[in-house]
Amino acid sequence: MQVCRTVQEVREFLRANRHKGPVGLVPTMGYFHAGHLALMHRARRECATVVVSIYVNPLQFGPAEDYSSYPRDPQRDLQLAREAGGVAVFMPSDEEMYPSGYATYVEVQGLTDKLCGRHRPGHFRGVATVVTKLFNIVRPDRAYFGEKDFQQALVIKRLVADLNFDLEVLTVPTVREPDGLAMSSRNVYLSPAERQAATVLYSSLLKARNAILAGERDPRRIENLLAEAINAEPLARLEYAEVYGLPWLAELTRLEGEVLLAVAARVGRARLIDNMVVVVP
Amino acid sequence: MQVCRTVQEVREFLRANRHKGPVGLVPTMGYFHAGHLALMHRARRECATVVVSIYVNPLQFGPAEDYSSYPRDPQRDLQLAREAGGVAVFMPSDEEMYPSGYATYVEVQGLTDKLCGRHRPGHFRGVATVVTKLFNIVRPDRAYFGEKDFQQALVIKRLVADLNFDLEVLTVPTVREPDGLAMSSRNVYLSPAERQAATVLYSSLLKARNAILAGERDPRRIENLLAEAINAEPLARLEYAEVYGLPWLAELTRLEGEVLLAVAARVGRARLIDNMVVVVP
Repeated sequence: MQVCRTVQEVREFLRANRHKGPVGLVPTMGYFHAGHLALMHRARRECATVVVSIYVNPLQFGPAEDYSSYPRDPQRDLQLAREAGGVAVFMPSDEEMYPSGYATYVEVQGLTDKLCGRHRPGHFRGVATVVTKLFNIVRPDRAYFGEKDFQQALVIKRLVADLNFDLEVLTVPTVREPDGLAMSSRNVYLSPAERQAATVLYSSLLKARNAILAGERDPRRIENLLAEAINAEPLARLEYAEVYGLPWLAELTRLEGEVLLAVAARVGRARLIDNMVVVVP
Repeated sequence: MQVCRTVQEVREFLRANRHKGPVGLVPTMGYFHAGHLALMHRARRECATVVVSIYVNPLQFGPAEDYSSYPRDPQRDLQLAREAGGVAVFMPSDEEMYPSGYATYVEVQGLTDKLCGRHRPGHFRGVATVVTKLFNIVRPDRAYFGEKDFQQALVIKRLVADLNFDLEVLTVPTVREPDGLAMSSRNVYLSPAERQAATVLYSSLLKARNAILAGERDPRRIENLLAEAINAEPLARLEYAEVYGLPWLAELTRLEGEVLLAVAARVGRARLIDNMVVVVP
């Protein structure tokens, strides 16, 4: 398996392989779980060459966030990528991505005022900046993002359209544990009791969906239902429970069309997020 | 001559021509003068395919600036591009560049706090954003910028390095009128008396260079000399007269190495800029 540590190595690898057909990019922060593997499998099915980037991007973490403790296991990641097969890995250093004198930032407005963007100032600026860099390094025809980070995928779609990147953004459904918990590298922070409590995010979404399917059309009542479900779990501290219209997170006064239910909560020292798209009948 | 009005037309044109060799991009706001033609000639010498963009980018004008009155003459520009030969033109509409819902911006920090950046808040954000878009639309191997807009060229070089654009930024010397005035589309704003007064920008730079060559090493005295020369012209209102170290506009306490002398002044309703690079002996 090709492992590139520098931008130049990626470019050389792609110069030798681009003629084979479409190039896919799977940007990750590593510490792979089944969600990452689903992205790789999908990319491999649809592209002749797949580059998986593994980089814990300091720019997308706030000063009080878990950048330094974010779980990392590069050797295990390389092993899992090797087993997945058919992918090359780009694993740059901080110095390679943000050398001394670095000064350029990409910002997507509007979309990022809500949900995680409101609670993590600067987060999506860091995401938009690193993804712009990865797009320019790899020049993929297709880029793959997980639906667990739904707002992130929207921000990337907006950025691709606005900055005229000539590539397609594809999203892959959230992979869940058997009890419904969305896979996340941060689940490793959870104690056994917290791990149990963490299922409240998904169960709150199911309850909200059922209420909509049963006829509820008031977005504020759905938000209250989500919040109450999460607040009923003593080990969870609600961060947000919000409902927006798709595709671009429209503020709603009545539920109709495709809507996004999105929740975030702290469970122990893990900040967890989950979401569900519901087509209002 | 190929004239493209949409991103899709440019992409189709380049799909049919990229195999011929390097692609050059000359981004302009039109109203061509000899400076633009020098950029085109240089690009044509060095590239198999040259795209000249003509777009008065609203994003790089402040609310009190001359966006609506900026001189435009698309038919004359097309004629001059045709006569220059060997170039294709990309002439998009505002709707093509910034469609409804547009939300993404590129910002280069640090470098843009000085000179024109300090006096035109948001200007270089508009430049960085539109140039990022043009780079993604054309995917040039080389992009050409005039040295009259020296800070702009530095901002673009920083952006290209930071965002990993796989292209080379080349600069072309300022083209001057016989009396030294730097060519600018905005010179058309000048009355005959103002046109005469406008030569003070270049003559101030020549005086400052002579003082450096005669042994002056204090950057503040050079700035004062520039300011006094411009203030001596009754029709000119000084905006800035500053001296920085190259390549990245370092603040200087003593002149050494390569330095940039840069001035800006209002003459009538024209805001004019000029600069000179001096190698300190």
